[in-house]
Amino acid sequence: MKLYGREVSGNSYKVRLLCALLGVPVELANVDLPGGEHKGGAHLARNPFGQIPVLDDGGRIIRDSQAILIYIARKWGGETWCPSDAAPLAEVAQWLMVAENEIARGFADARLHDKFGIDLDVALAREKANRVLAIMDSHLAKNDWLALGRATIADVACMPYIALSHEGGISLEPYPAVKTWIGRIKALPNFIGMPGITET
Amino acid sequence: MKLYGREVSGNSYKVRLLCALLGVPVELANVDLPGGEHKGGAHLARNPFGQIPVLDDGGRIIRDSQAILIYIARKWGGETWCPSDAAPLAEVAQWLMVAENEIARGFADARLHDKFGIDLDVALAREKANRVLAIMDSHLAKNDWLALGRATIADVACMPYIALSHEGGISLEPYPAVKTWIGRIKALPNFIGMPGITET
Repeated sequence: MKLYGREVSGNSYKVRLLCALLGVPVELANVDLPGGEHKGGAHLARNPFGQIPVLDDGGRIIRDSQAILIYIARKWGGETWCPSDAAPLAEVAQWLMVAENEIARGFADARLHDKFGIDLDVALAREKANRVLAIMDSHLAKNDWLALGRATIADVACMPYIALSHEGGISLEPYPAVKTWIGRIKALPNFIGMPGITET
Repeated sequence: MKLYGREVSGNSYKVRLLCALLGVPVELANVDLPGGEHKGGAHLARNPFGQIPVLDDGGRIIRDSQAILIYIARKWGGETWCPSDAAPLAEVAQWLMVAENEIARGFADARLHDKFGIDLDVALAREKANRVLAIMDSHLAKNDWLALGRATIADVACMPYIALSHEGGISLEPYPAVKTWIGRIKALPNFIGMPGITET
């Protein structure tokens, strides 16, 4: 499989992380975002939304990091990482939606501002991030994992931009259960890091 | 099943619409958003994010409209509305993420501004909505449905706020394939409308 993405992209990383955890080989094909490659014809043909990452599995194209996690987990992870029954799948999906919405508009936006100089309301992004952190800390104080009492793609989807929060001026210090949860994910066999996320 | 939501909420409507299409009874329990009921203890106990809708299926609580669609489709819709295999599920999920992200930040935000007086950057919201419309129109010019060549929860998730776009100052006139697609959904057996979305 080939993943069109970037080394510094948290959304690309979450896909590479799931592949590492499952032992599935994936090759990262760098998309030159600073050079505008994602707005060019070849990438838009893969993803008209002009975003990364995009997965190419033998010609089958999947866009959106959360949808890619679902694809990989269902194809290679059995029922463990993404179950198919109504209740457990919905429990996982609830957190995929938090990754797609609140975490993207909070943590990822704050990092886009601080690290990549994107013009946006960073105070609002940090406020959204802290609202999410308060909810997650309360949840994770009572639960080791976000869903189903075990590691699932819910954790893989939500963790990266939270673990990168220092790159967006957001502190995790007030949220000890979130910090412990990140450590729990890092302790999974075959965990890999990325720039800004250490392996221990 | 009980759905905590509102008659004028597009996210509540999409759940009621899927239930109608599947013939599954659901009771709408009104949450008094203008009165701040969603920020009160009873609702926060159901959903700490303070959002609607929330589904209560005999004590099982599911938050987030897209996750609720997955739950209902998997529980009562067999493989038709939300399949479980990797490739078709990911194809549907891609569009659920568009509903959760681009459509919410485009169409739904523009409507929040125009109809409910929420202070936000409505020009940016309309620009995002038109970017999505251009992509969807091109896709729907070649496909009757968003995913899998049939009606799925992808259509149910994405349609409501697009069909309500006139309430956010967004015109569908330049996007004939999107208009035809909305008509195709309205022609499904047992389709129901909501304030702002007629049944024909």
